[in-house]
Amino acid sequence: MAAEGLSVIVTSGGLGPTADDLTAEVVAEFCGRPMVLDEELEARITEIVTPLMARWPGVDPEAVLAANRKQAVVPEGATVLDPVGTAPGLVVPSAGPRPGPTVVVLPGPPRELMPMWRTAVETEAFKQAVAGAEVTRREMLRLFGIPEAEIAVTLREASAAGIELSALEITTCLRRSEIEVAVRFPPAAEDSYRQLLEFIRERHPRELFSEDGATIDQQIASTLLERGLTVAVAESCTGGLMAGRLTELAGSSAYMLGGVVVYSNEAKSGLVGVPAELIESVGAVSVEVARALADGARERFGASLGVGITGVAGPGGGSEEKPVGFVCFSVCSDSGSLTRSARLPGSRSDVRDRSTTVALHLLARLLRGDSD
Amino acid sequence: MAAEGLSVIVTSGGLGPTADDLTAEVVAEFCGRPMVLDEELEARITEIVTPLMARWPGVDPEAVLAANRKQAVVPEGATVLDPVGTAPGLVVPSAGPRPGPTVVVLPGPPRELMPMWRTAVETEAFKQAVAGAEVTRREMLRLFGIPEAEIAVTLREASAAGIELSALEITTCLRRSEIEVAVRFPPAAEDSYRQLLEFIRERHPRELFSEDGATIDQQIASTLLERGLTVAVAESCTGGLMAGRLTELAGSSAYMLGGVVVYSNEAKSGLVGVPAELIESVGAVSVEVARALADGARERFGASLGVGITGVAGPGGGSEEKPVGFVCFSVCSDSGSLTRSARLPGSRSDVRDRSTTVALHLLARLLRGDSD
Repeated sequence: MAAEGLSVIVTSGGLGPTADDLTAEVVAEFCGRPMVLDEELEARITEIVTPLMARWPGVDPEAVLAANRKQAVVPEGATVLDPVGTAPGLVVPSAGPRPGPTVVVLPGPPRELMPMWRTAVETEAFKQAVAGAEVTRREMLRLFGIPEAEIAVTLREASAAGIELSALEITTCLRRSEIEVAVRFPPAAEDSYRQLLEFIRERHPRELFSEDGATIDQQIASTLLERGLTVAVAESCTGGLMAGRLTELAGSSAYMLGGVVVYSNEAKSGLVGVPAELIESVGAVSVEVARALADGARERFGASLGVGITGVAGPGGGSEEKPVGFVCFSVCSDSGSLTRSARLPGSRSDVRDRSTTVALHLLARLLRGDSD
Repeated sequence: MAAEGLSVIVTSGGLGPTADDLTAEVVAEFCGRPMVLDEELEARITEIVTPLMARWPGVDPEAVLAANRKQAVVPEGATVLDPVGTAPGLVVPSAGPRPGPTVVVLPGPPRELMPMWRTAVETEAFKQAVAGAEVTRREMLRLFGIPEAEIAVTLREASAAGIELSALEITTCLRRSEIEVAVRFPPAAEDSYRQLLEFIRERHPRELFSEDGATIDQQIASTLLERGLTVAVAESCTGGLMAGRLTELAGSSAYMLGGVVVYSNEAKSGLVGVPAELIESVGAVSVEVARALADGARERFGASLGVGITGVAGPGGGSEEKPVGFVCFSVCSDSGSLTRSARLPGSRSDVRDRSTTVALHLLARLLRGDSD
């Protein structure tokens, strides 16, 4: 990367206390700087680690502090980024005779890396490294209900329609059953981006659900909060993951009342009142039982909205009529309901995770006023 | 990598149908092979994609098949690995005048990559590339209840005690609150590994819970199945993730009866019978309520074992006495119970995820016969 003339290199990981964490040392050598103990940083890490030690009775605190001291040895002249966990980040300008890249050294865990990156870009050392560079914009579109290959067709057609795609860096990714279209572009390509957005809007009016990067989870949370609605879940094959997803965002207790995971038929009847005769006649995996689960959850928790999910997550338990990946969904409110079945591809873990996405999109449709 | 004389390079990702999926083309150029359409492979992909199309009404099947045809254009002379999803893998030997590395091209999604890697290593092309190479062993130890810095101390002391660690490639990783110690070594270093294992066993007799790579989830599942026991969960701050984790493994319906996610106090009382006066007097986040949740879950589902979790996942809702990350756990059976509280570090998502790990280890201890 240095040979290609890049101005900034970002590393992540390898900043821990163990001997295999070599990043700081390797970067120091690369940037032509000796490693020195930063005593202020050492004191800061000690301050962070000492209360944590209280959780580990029986561990020799001296030995642990020595191990963590390693993390305070940094390249001379580097800008230190305050630790979010126990590992400090670094911005290390080249000290060689010729100008080389500045290296931004971040810890591996995403929850530490992300806030520290935001700190890093505000440092003088970073600003000097990127002085004069153009700010690239990044937009994120999300679609649900089309295969990834279809977005490739859309992009080809947009290009054929005369939209200047070469000015845009477009990455498409299939994630949790949704298509993410990330577009990066310099300010001069703003018009091309606007044209592409309009083209996608026209071609996929129902499928394009987010133009500002907001996830379906965030959209549903906003809608529920705005309208003062509450939700409850009764789920079988997703085994708690749907409730887990609805409680993922901070503040979810304002709209999520709770859920039941009803794996056994007895639990389906006993906890949310699905009639045993219904299970007997149509089977536990059926749109009828999904509907009864949604109604039962809504009623049992006194929620505005109910969600019911039942399906075959696999790898066992499939039949010709109801194969592995066959999942039934129902969402209901006082004004109506939507009930669907789908055959989802992938492993047990894929089927469970994708089911939560499908259920969230069904819930979003109900909130938009759709009803069977 | 080629310049360093490596025999095999493995790539993952970039095999999809969209224009930004360039891996096969780049590898072909690198290996000195032209790209050719493999008609047999095209037929195979069509066969896979056609039934999937049925799920996407309104999509032009011709256009999608054209997009997928791209995936059947492969480097001439490459060994094609049958797709697990729709993307084929490749084993591409160098065609240059000098011997270069063989490139193994795998798709990005782990569920496709993993089985295709196992297929790749069985191909003639791969075997030729690694002919004469030594088979490296990999062992995985798992520990719970010590900080990562402590394992660094253990490794230093093992070395000081004369164990030849230089023959072992040791990687430590903190994952979901557990320490993973992965050790890779050539057959000649078997003795050093045995000595290290013995050293860790002696130094961390309670913390070392897995010597064969088995996860705590797998260990609990095996024990429950062996003894014919069942389990049920009542959880608050983990919002369904504990039930989700206990239903993650195939066949979990044999031991997991179900769970309730009781976010509101009304649900705690109404669904699993936690006395409202108890919540009133000690607070919803308390060891007493955790215990009542465990008992209630066990009774409500008629399970052998009950698990109760209540805590402050954050970022809001913390107090001086019960700060963000404070979580109470209880597990019970007909022979006893274990109830604990802990202060877990990290974000909302970390606290929720780590809570499930702590609860599983508490359950494992109850199954080993520990009791308050």
